[in-house]
Amino acid sequence: MRIAAARVIVTCPGRNFVTLKVVTDEGVTGVGDATLNGRELAVAAYLREHVVPALIGRDPARIEDTWQYLYKGAYWRRGPVTMTAVAAVDTALWDIKGKVAGLPVYQLLGGRSREGVTVYAHANAATTADVLAEVGRQVERGYRAVRVQTGVPGLATTYGVSAGGRTYEPADAAVPSEATWSTRRYLAHVPSVFRRVREEFGPELMLLHDVHHRLTPIEAARLGRALEPYDLTWMEDPVPAELPEGFRLIRQHTTTPIAVGEVFNSVWDCRQLITEQLIDYVRTTVVHAGGITHLRRIFDLASLYHVRSGSHGATDLSPVCLAAALHVDLSIPNFGLQEHMPHTAETDAVFPHGYRFADGYLHPSEEPGLGVDLDEELAARYPYRAASLPVNRLEDGTLHSW
Amino acid sequence: MRIAAARVIVTCPGRNFVTLKVVTDEGVTGVGDATLNGRELAVAAYLREHVVPALIGRDPARIEDTWQYLYKGAYWRRGPVTMTAVAAVDTALWDIKGKVAGLPVYQLLGGRSREGVTVYAHANAATTADVLAEVGRQVERGYRAVRVQTGVPGLATTYGVSAGGRTYEPADAAVPSEATWSTRRYLAHVPSVFRRVREEFGPELMLLHDVHHRLTPIEAARLGRALEPYDLTWMEDPVPAELPEGFRLIRQHTTTPIAVGEVFNSVWDCRQLITEQLIDYVRTTVVHAGGITHLRRIFDLASLYHVRSGSHGATDLSPVCLAAALHVDLSIPNFGLQEHMPHTAETDAVFPHGYRFADGYLHPSEEPGLGVDLDEELAARYPYRAASLPVNRLEDGTLHSW
Amino acid sequence: MRIAAARVIVTCPGRNFVTLKVVTDEGVTGVGDATLNGRELAVAAYLREHVVPALIGRDPARIEDTWQYLYKGAYWRRGPVTMTAVAAVDTALWDIKGKVAGLPVYQLLGGRSREGVTVYAHANAATTADVLAEVGRQVERGYRAVRVQTGVPGLATTYGVSAGGRTYEPADAAVPSEATWSTRRYLAHVPSVFRRVREEFGPELMLLHDVHHRLTPIEAARLGRALEPYDLTWMEDPVPAELPEGFRLIRQHTTTPIAVGEVFNSVWDCRQLITEQLIDYVRTTVVHAGGITHLRRIFDLASLYHVRSGSHGATDLSPVCLAAALHVDLSIPNFGLQEHMPHTAETDAVFPHGYRFADGYLHPSEEPGLGVDLDEELAARYPYRAASLPVNRLEDGTLHSW
Amino acid sequence: MRIAAARVIVTCPGRNFVTLKVVTDEGVTGVGDATLNGRELAVAAYLREHVVPALIGRDPARIEDTWQYLYKGAYWRRGPVTMTAVAAVDTALWDIKGKVAGLPVYQLLGGRSREGVTVYAHANAATTADVLAEVGRQVERGYRAVRVQTGVPGLATTYGVSAGGRTYEPADAAVPSEATWSTRRYLAHVPSVFRRVREEFGPELMLLHDVHHRLTPIEAARLGRALEPYDLTWMEDPVPAELPEGFRLIRQHTTTPIAVGEVFNSVWDCRQLITEQLIDYVRTTVVHAGGITHLRRIFDLASLYHVRSGSHGATDLSPVCLAAALHVDLSIPNFGLQEHMPHTAETDAVFPHGYRFADGYLHPSEEPGLGVDLDEELAARYPYRAASLPVNRLEDGTLHSW
Repeated sequence: MRIAAARVIVTCPGRNFVTLKVVTDEGVTGVGDATLNGRELAVAAYLREHVVPALIGRDPARIEDTWQYLYKGAYWRRGPVTMTAVAAVDTALWDIKGKVAGLPVYQLLGGRSREGVTVYAHANAATTADVLAEVGRQVERGYRAVRVQTGVPGLATTYGVSAGGRTYEPADAAVPSEATWSTRRYLAHVPSVFRRVREEFGPELMLLHDVHHRLTPIEAARLGRALEPYDLTWMEDPVPAELPEGFRLIRQHTTTPIAVGEVFNSVWDCRQLITEQLIDYVRTTVVHAGGITHLRRIFDLASLYHVRSGSHGATDLSPVCLAAALHVDLSIPNFGLQEHMPHTAETDAVFPHGYRFADGYLHPSEEPGLGVDLDEELAARYPYRAASLPVNRLEDGTLHSW
Repeated sequence: MRIAAARVIVTCPGRNFVTLKVVTDEGVTGVGDATLNGRELAVAAYLREHVVPALIGRDPARIEDTWQYLYKGAYWRRGPVTMTAVAAVDTALWDIKGKVAGLPVYQLLGGRSREGVTVYAHANAATTADVLAEVGRQVERGYRAVRVQTGVPGLATTYGVSAGGRTYEPADAAVPSEATWSTRRYLAHVPSVFRRVREEFGPELMLLHDVHHRLTPIEAARLGRALEPYDLTWMEDPVPAELPEGFRLIRQHTTTPIAVGEVFNSVWDCRQLITEQLIDYVRTTVVHAGGITHLRRIFDLASLYHVRSGSHGATDLSPVCLAAALHVDLSIPNFGLQEHMPHTAETDAVFPHGYRFADGYLHPSEEPGLGVDLDEELAARYPYRAASLPVNRLEDGTLHSW
Repeated sequence: MRIAAARVIVTCPGRNFVTLKVVTDEGVTGVGDATLNGRELAVAAYLREHVVPALIGRDPARIEDTWQYLYKGAYWRRGPVTMTAVAAVDTALWDIKGKVAGLPVYQLLGGRSREGVTVYAHANAATTADVLAEVGRQVERGYRAVRVQTGVPGLATTYGVSAGGRTYEPADAAVPSEATWSTRRYLAHVPSVFRRVREEFGPELMLLHDVHHRLTPIEAARLGRALEPYDLTWMEDPVPAELPEGFRLIRQHTTTPIAVGEVFNSVWDCRQLITEQLIDYVRTTVVHAGGITHLRRIFDLASLYHVRSGSHGATDLSPVCLAAALHVDLSIPNFGLQEHMPHTAETDAVFPHGYRFADGYLHPSEEPGLGVDLDEELAARYPYRAASLPVNRLEDGTLHSW
Repeated sequence: MRIAAARVIVTCPGRNFVTLKVVTDEGVTGVGDATLNGRELAVAAYLREHVVPALIGRDPARIEDTWQYLYKGAYWRRGPVTMTAVAAVDTALWDIKGKVAGLPVYQLLGGRSREGVTVYAHANAATTADVLAEVGRQVERGYRAVRVQTGVPGLATTYGVSAGGRTYEPADAAVPSEATWSTRRYLAHVPSVFRRVREEFGPELMLLHDVHHRLTPIEAARLGRALEPYDLTWMEDPVPAELPEGFRLIRQHTTTPIAVGEVFNSVWDCRQLITEQLIDYVRTTVVHAGGITHLRRIFDLASLYHVRSGSHGATDLSPVCLAAALHVDLSIPNFGLQEHMPHTAETDAVFPHGYRFADGYLHPSEEPGLGVDLDEELAARYPYRAASLPVNRLEDGTLHSW
C-alpha cells in the first residue's frame, strides 16, 4: 500500500482547526490533527509545502520510519510548528494502521488498561459565587474532577475566565488583545476561592487549578503551600517551563502536586522534569508532542518516575486529537487525567466521531482506526478566520507570560 | 475473545526449551518463549501453578493490563524467573494480537524501520590459528559481525570455547562443571588474538568480544584500552552488572564501546547504566526482560541516551524468542546488532518458523503474528534432561563469576 | 561432613509453606524457609530440580562458598524466586553449623547484643472504634509497638483489614481476587484514625503504618506530613520501590521515618536507599533476601548510614524464618524492630520451635542451631492448596499496586 | 515612529531565501533574514499570517518589548520556525534602530572589540588529493581557517562534498534525496586525511571538521582522540544535540575542542552545554536563534564559561543574516570564529551589502544599520523553487541523522 495523496484542511467551525488527511492508493484514509492555536497557517504551510510532497509514494505502514524521516529530515528539530506537523502525519498513519488491522487504535497500543478515561471539566467565573455555581453544574454533568479558574478583584480580565458568561476561548481577536496582570492580587485571592469550593463540594471532588506560567518559583511555592488545605489534584503550569530547575524550588516547599506540559513539543522539553521528579503529571498532547508514537515515549519515560499523564484537551485541539488522545489514555499504564472541554455543535458536525462521555468518563470509539473523520464538504463552509491568543502585561506595562 | 487454555511445554531437542502456548476460545493460538537456561523448571512451575490459572477467561487483547496484572500481582517483582514467566505470556499475547489483526507483529510495533536485522555470529576456538579459521568461516557465510572468543594459554577451558570442536553449549552437565580462571593470563593473551584477526580480515568486519563478567572495573578499563587499536564494535559484560557505578571507571579510561544486558530482567536493572550513558548497547532480550511490551520500553529509554539494542541471541533462547526479537529489531529506531547462533536441526523442526538468514541479515516472517510455532507432538519426543551452567573458580579455589 | 540429602517440603497448615531440609552424612539436619507467598511452587521447583542435585556431596561447613556457588552459578542473579531458594540453603547450613558447634546461631553471629527482640503487633479493623479496640488488645498482650491498618470509608476492602473479623490473610483465593483502591479516600481518612489512637493510648506506644506501595512520592510526602503530629515510628512502603529516587521527594517533606524492604531480594535493591539515607528502617528478611549470610551484609551496610533493621515477619514467613530472624536480630548492632504476627496453632505444631514471646519481646531458642524444626509427618497431612495474593484496581479499572 | 508595513519576500537566486522587510511610517526600512532551509514557506506563513498583522502600528524602537511580545505571545515557544520568525523581526528592528541613530549596528552593541572578523572557509572534496588542492586554494584566498570535509571510500556521497566539483548545496532536490552512511568507513578514513592536510600546510593553519551529528558519544570520543595529533580548532556537531549529557563522554576522552549550535534556536537548547563547559564554541546564528537580541544573551552566557562564538554561516543564511552576524561578531568580547561560505553572484546582487572580505577577515559595513538590503524587484525575478535537505540511511536502511 502506498500513500497516494495527503490534504491539509483548514476550517473554522467556531474556531480554527488544521487537519491532515492521508489517502492511500487502496482508498484507506487517515486523519491527524495539526492545529497550533494562533499559528495555524504556519503548520498548514509546513505540511503542504514541505511534508506532503515527500509523503506521496511512501508505505503508510512504516510509521516509525516516517516519524524519523520527518524528525531527522527536518534538520532543525523540535519546536511547536515542526512537531505539530510530524504529529499530524503520525496520527493519520496510526488511523490507517488501525483500519488495515480492523481494530481500534488502542488495541494496537496494547489494549484496554481501564474501563474509561477520567476527564476533568472547567469551571471558570469572575466571582466566587459564580465559580461555585459553575462547579456545581459540572458536578451535575457527572464530572469527577473540575479545574477552577476565578476572576481576581482589581483585574479586568483573568486567564480562563470569559467576559459575559460565554464559553471561554482565549484566541479572541485577529491581533492579540492585551490583559493586565498582578501577581500580588492573584496570590491574595485564589486560596479563598478554593476554600469555598472545598467547603461546598466536600473532599471527594478532584480540584485542579491552572496558574498559566505566571509566577516565579518562590511565588509558586507559596501558592502551592497556601492551597495544601484544599487538597488539589494538581497545580498546573506554575512557572514558565523552559528552565526545569525552576521547579526544584516549588518542589522543596509544597506537596501540592504539579502538572506541566501542554506547551511541550518533545520528550526533550520534559525529560529533566520527569527524571528529577519535579512534576507529577505530564500534560503533553498527541498534536503538539509529535503524535502517538512520540507521546507514548514521553508517557513511558514518565512511568518510570511515578509521573502520570494529564493531557491537555482544550477546544484548541480538534476532535481528531481528542479521539487519538483517548486511545492513548485508555491503553497506557500510567494514565492520570484527561482534560475535556466540549467542542461546539458545529465542530462536532465537521468532525464526525464515535467517542462519548458518560458518568465522568470518556470512551473512545470501537471502530477500526481512531473513529473520527473530517467532513471536507462541511468543513469548506467554515473558512479560516485569523484569531490570536492574547498577551499579558504587568501593571507597569512589562510584557508578562500570558 | 477469551483465553481458553494455556499449556507449558518443556522439550529438549538438543537443549531444554520451555514454551507457553496460549489458546483462545476462538481457536487462535500464541506462543511465548519461557526458557531460563539451567533454571527451566522453576519458570515452568511458576507458569503452570501460579500464572496459567489466572489467565483463563481473560481477554487476550488486554496485553498491557495483563502485563501489569502479572508484574504487580506477583508482589515480589523483578528477577529472572518472574520476568521470564511474564515475558512468555506477553509474547504469546502479541502473537495472538498479530494474528487477529492479520499482520506480522512488527507492523503493530510501528512497522519496518530497516530492510533486515544485522546479526553477528560466533567464532570460538582454543588457538589463534583456529580462531582465524573460524572467523573466516563466518565471513564466508555472510556475517558482517563476529564475536571472537579464544582459549587462554594455561587455562584448560575458557568461556565460549568448546572442547573438541563441537558447537559450544555451556550447560554441559546435569550438575555444574567447574572451570578455572586466571585474569592475568586472560588479559595477557586476548589483545594479541584481536591483533591477528584485525590484520587478517581488515577494517570492515565488525568484531565483538564477551568478557562474561569476569573482570573488575579497573581491569576492564585496561582491557578496553588495550583493545582500542583493533576497533571493537563492543566489549561485552566487562564486569558483574549489579553495580552500575562499576562501569564509570571503565568509561573514564577507554573508548571501546560497552555492551551489557543479557542478564537483565527489567528496565530497573539497566536504568542507571543507560541514563548515565555507561553503556553503548543494551543486550536485554524478549524472554528475560518481560516480553515485547517491556523490552520496547527499555529500548525506548536507551534511545534517549544514544544507547542501541544488541539483544542476546544464543541458543539458550528458543526460536520463539528469536522470532519475537526480530519483530522488535526490525521496528525500533535504535537497533544496533542482534546476536545469532543457529539452532540445531532438531530444534528448528520442533519450532517451525518463517524467519530466514540472507547476506548477514535475518528477516522476520511476514505471516500474521510472530510467524513461529511449536510442534507439540514432535516436542514430546524430546523430554527434559537436566543441564546446568558451569561455575568458575580462581586458581586458589575462590568462586568467581562464570 | 557432606550433604547427603536435601528435601523440599510443601505444607499448608492454614497457609502454604515451603521448607528445605538438608541432611548430612552424619545425620545432622538443618532447615531453611523457602516460602514465597503466591509463588511457592516456583521456588520448590527451583530447589528440587536445579539446586538440590548440586548440593549433594558438598561440605555443609562452606556456607560462604555455597552462597557464592548458588548466586554466581545461577548466571541470572537476583529476584525473588532465586534469592528465596538461595536463602533456604543458606539458612539450613547455618542451622547445621550451630548444631555442629553446639551453639545457638546467634552465638556464631557475634553473640547477644541485647536482651530480647522488640516486636510489633498488628491492629487491623474496618472502623475506627474497632481499630482502637484492637490496639488495646495488643497493648494488653504486652506489645510495645503496633502497626495500625484501617478500613477506608467508601472502599469495600482495604489492605491489612480482613472481612468478618478473621485473622487477615491476603492470599485468600486460588486465583487473585480483585480489590478497588482510591488514594483520595485513603488519604482523607487515615490521619484521623491515628489521631484517635494517639489520643487513646498516649505518647509511649510505638505506632506504625503500612502504605503498601500505593502512593506516588508526592502523595506519600503529604501523608507523611499529615501523620507527623501522631509521632509514627515508621511509615512503611509508601511508594513502589523500584525507583530509589522516588523516596527523595518524601524525604524532603516529612520527618516521619520511612521503612521499606519486605519486597527486596538483595542488597542491590536497597543500596541506594541506604547510602542516600532515604529510609530509616530496612525490612529485608532472611527468606527473601538471600539468607542469614546476605541479610547480615545488608544490615551492615545500613549500619554505616544510621539505618536500622525492621524485618518483615508476617505469617507468610514460616516459623523457620522467624527463628532465623531472631538470631540475626539479637546479634546485630543496629537492630530496630521485628514484625510479629503469630502463626496458627496448626503451623506452630508443624514447626516445633523454641522461640518465645514475653513482655513485648521475642527471644530465640537457646538450643544449638536455629531451634526450629519441621515435623515432616505432620506436614504431610496438610497438602498444598493454591492461594494467590490479590490485585488492586483503581476505580476506573486501572491495575494498581496491591 | 510606527511600523507601517512589513513584507515577507521569498526569492531563489540559486537557493531559497526568506526576508522580512519592515517599513515605518517615516519611510525607514529594516531587513531581517527569515530563511529556514527546506522549511522556508512555514516561516513565511508564520510571519505573514500571524506576526505581520500584529506588528503594524507598533513602535519600532521597542525592540526588547517586541521580542518578548512575539516570544511569550506565541504561547508555544521555541523551535526553529518560531524563533526564525522572531529573529527576522528582531533583526529588522535593529537595522531600523541603526539607521535612526545614523550608526552601524555594531556601535549600538557596544562598539568594535576587534579589527575584523576572522572567518573560516570550506574545503570539500571526494579524494584526499582534491581535498589538499582545495585547502590550498582557500589558503591562497587568504583564509586562516579551513573546514575540511572529505569523501569516504565505499560511500557514494558524503556530507559536505558535492558530486562533480560544484559548490556544495545540500538541498538538492524537491523531495529529499537519500544518502547512505557508514560510521565504520567514516571513522577509518577521516584521520588520515587530516594527517595529510596538517603535513602539507603546517601547524599555523586552523583546521576544523564537521561531523554533522552522525556519531554516538563513544564514537565521537574515539574520533576526537584520533584527531588530536592534527590539532583541530574544533570538531563540530559530533552527536545529535538534544541530549546535553551526550557530550560529557566525549569531553572525558579528548581535548579536541567541540563546537555545536547551528541547529539551536534559543539559549535553552545550549544552556547546559555551556554551563557544564561541554563545548568550546557555540555556533548559534542570528536567524535561527531569535535575532540579535537573543543571540547576544547566548554569547553572554557563554562568556561566563570560557565558551566562544563560532556562528554558522553557510549559504543557507542570506547576506542579511551574514551582515547581522558581523555586527555581533565585531562587538562581543568572546568572539571565536565566523563561518564564511560566499554566496553566488546572483544572491549578492539580490542583497546589496557593504561587508567585505580581506586577508582572512570579514568587515561589516560602516553604513547606518546593518548595511544590507533586499532589491525586491530583482528578487521577484527568482521565484521560490521547492528544495529539500537530504536524509541519510545506514547500510541496512535505518534512518540516520543527516
